Amino acid sequence: MTQIQNLKTQFLSVEDVARLVGEIGIASTLQRMANYIEQDYIRWQDFDKCARVAAHSPEGVIELMPIADAKTYTFKYVNGHPKNTAAGLPTVMAFGVLADVDTGAPLLLSELTLTTALRTAAMSAVAARVLARPNSKSMALIGNGAQSEFQALAFHYLLGIEELRLYDTDPAATAKLVANLAHTKLRITVASSIAQAVKGADIVTTVTADKTNATILSADMLEPGMHINGVGGDCPGKTELHPDVLRASTVFVQYEPQTRIEGDLQHLPADFAVTELWQVLALKAKGRTSAQEITLFDSVGFALEDFSALRFLHEAAQAQGVGQTISLVPQLANPKDLFSALRPAAPLSASQVLAQQAVQALALAT
Amino acid sequence: MTQIQNLKTQFLSVEDVARLVGEIGIASTLQRMANYIEQDYIRWQDFDKCARVAAHSPEGVIELMPIADAKTYTFKYVNGHPKNTAAGLPTVMAFGVLADVDTGAPLLLSELTLTTALRTAAMSAVAARVLARPNSKSMALIGNGAQSEFQALAFHYLLGIEELRLYDTDPAATAKLVANLAHTKLRITVASSIAQAVKGADIVTTVTADKTNATILSADMLEPGMHINGVGGDCPGKTELHPDVLRASTVFVQYEPQTRIEGDLQHLPADFAVTELWQVLALKAKGRTSAQEITLFDSVGFALEDFSALRFLHEAAQAQGVGQTISLVPQLANPKDLFSALRPAAPLSASQVLAQQAVQALALAT
Repeated sequence: MTQIQNLKTQFLSVEDVARLVGEIGIASTLQRMANYIEQDYIRWQDFDKCARVAAHSPEGVIELMPIADAKTYTFKYVNGHPKNTAAGLPTVMAFGVLADVDTGAPLLLSELTLTTALRTAAMSAVAARVLARPNSKSMALIGNGAQSEFQALAFHYLLGIEELRLYDTDPAATAKLVANLAHTKLRITVASSIAQAVKGADIVTTVTADKTNATILSADMLEPGMHINGVGGDCPGKTELHPDVLRASTVFVQYEPQTRIEGDLQHLPADFAVTELWQVLALKAKGRTSAQEITLFDSVGFALEDFSALRFLHEAAQAQGVGQTISLVPQLANPKDLFSALRPAAPLSASQVLAQQAVQALALAT
Repeated sequence: MTQIQNLKTQFLSVEDVARLVGEIGIASTLQRMANYIEQDYIRWQDFDKCARVAAHSPEGVIELMPIADAKTYTFKYVNGHPKNTAAGLPTVMAFGVLADVDTGAPLLLSELTLTTALRTAAMSAVAARVLARPNSKSMALIGNGAQSEFQALAFHYLLGIEELRLYDTDPAATAKLVANLAHTKLRITVASSIAQAVKGADIVTTVTADKTNATILSADMLEPGMHINGVGGDCPGKTELHPDVLRASTVFVQYEPQTRIEGDLQHLPADFAVTELWQVLALKAKGRTSAQEITLFDSVGFALEDFSALRFLHEAAQAQGVGQTISLVPQLANPKDLFSALRPAAPLSASQVLAQQAVQALALAT
């Protein structure tokens, strides 16, 4: 009789990913995720890239973000619903799948809400490693919401940032960030204005949540040699930087066609010059060229970071033995007999046994 | 302290869906799924429709098929890898998600390999109910592979088909189909040629698997009053019907822009007239107009059927208490404190407790 063996898909829940990060340590997790991202960006031209597929509604957006190389396919499901917090739900929720290109089999299903925060911070660190001045020690962190701890820790552990200057319009958000960073060696100052936080900082990270064209950073706040890590301006109508900030800077992006629509770049003319970051990582273009230059990473979140993050999770979870397997797709002894997956396990009737024997005889004969 | 409650996503594995179908019964499952499809097709204009997003590789294709109305969003992941059978894997594997449009929360994750076979057959029956001659009793079933049992049962239970004439180039496939239908009251004949199977049949279903432009059905086999249910010609370069079969028929499709690329319709000029099925179901266009007319449903598989199927599964699984819940996305007491999902459950240090109290005091004050 047809035996049904189910293909195993590894599943990582929110708790599994939290446990995995706990076991590996957050510094090491961010470091390894950054390395996966860097490796994948260096081989940028291996990827089949496409724009995200968005379904808009009055309350928000649901997006699918697929990407593939010759071996691995991934996609992320992610929503953006600003009013969710009132209902006790996160504004952004995400999960994703890693699949085998040669067979289409889904190998890993994972939560990606926590993971998106980790990979966004790791991506920012990858960019800053080639764009910020070496020996940068201080960072202004404007916007102290859900992503801020991850940015703070990535720059602390991967860039050597020792001093943070925090600013948020919501003091409770800042207090939460201070509390969550209490276990680190970071020296933390709470600033009373954006200008105060930014003054003298080597790196400025903007990661605010307002769904508007806000001006968090204006050109008068810039100082020679600064690196701007612009994270929060990441969809049409949601920006943080005055256009003059971009004009005063050398601007780097992930995927130019997407950033021109989604990034702070959306306010600049189509011929405003930018450099795709992969070219810097692959040594095809220059990053920072002088200690005086102002560099700017206009981050929007691209499918390739999720690809790298899923690759990391898949390998790390297997190594650490975290997660479980689920039966998401059937495996059939006879692929033409999908119906067998519905067949009851109960004993077959006499006529069914006869018919089954006829099938086997024919299968042997052909 | 921040309490993490995880949003529950219902999960249906392959075994869960098999169990659900077993409990409801396959006749009733097909009937109810057909009703969901019919309801959704009648309100066709409520849906935000888009083309599937495909990632092609030398061995196959991986696709995402999203669709949404004002309340519910669904997508399906589905692959197509013809060589998979050699590796003991199904050619087609699928899973999908149903989410809430207002919050983006994923409510159901389900296997869709079995379900796709069920919904494809239910869709064919929905079309045939308005296109085939009333009191059709016999059906030729050309192609006896993975989908064939589902087509046979849908037409038996939903259309009243009593007699089947089977043909496949692979006798083992036909024997498998005969065995899998042994429990029904269907009268079954195995034909020695396509022409023999088709001759005198009220309905002709073609559901072959060859990834080529094959000619399964030619115009000389047609008889007045026949209904053609063309299921297997469903992607570019994969067709079953000679163009003259379409020319001799009144042709109905799911979503015209997609069928012109993927259906048997791909061989006809862009101005060849077709009718979208939803118009017939919504009484905006005529289906069959005479007993002599030859009708043809050029089925390709559209995201709306998966939407209907996921809606059915979600409601039926809750009613029957089948499946489990998984922690796919986090729910946070403070949505700005995503980092709390990583916080170890171990007791806080004294400084952490103080910091936590400061957060709570500030949260109360603001």
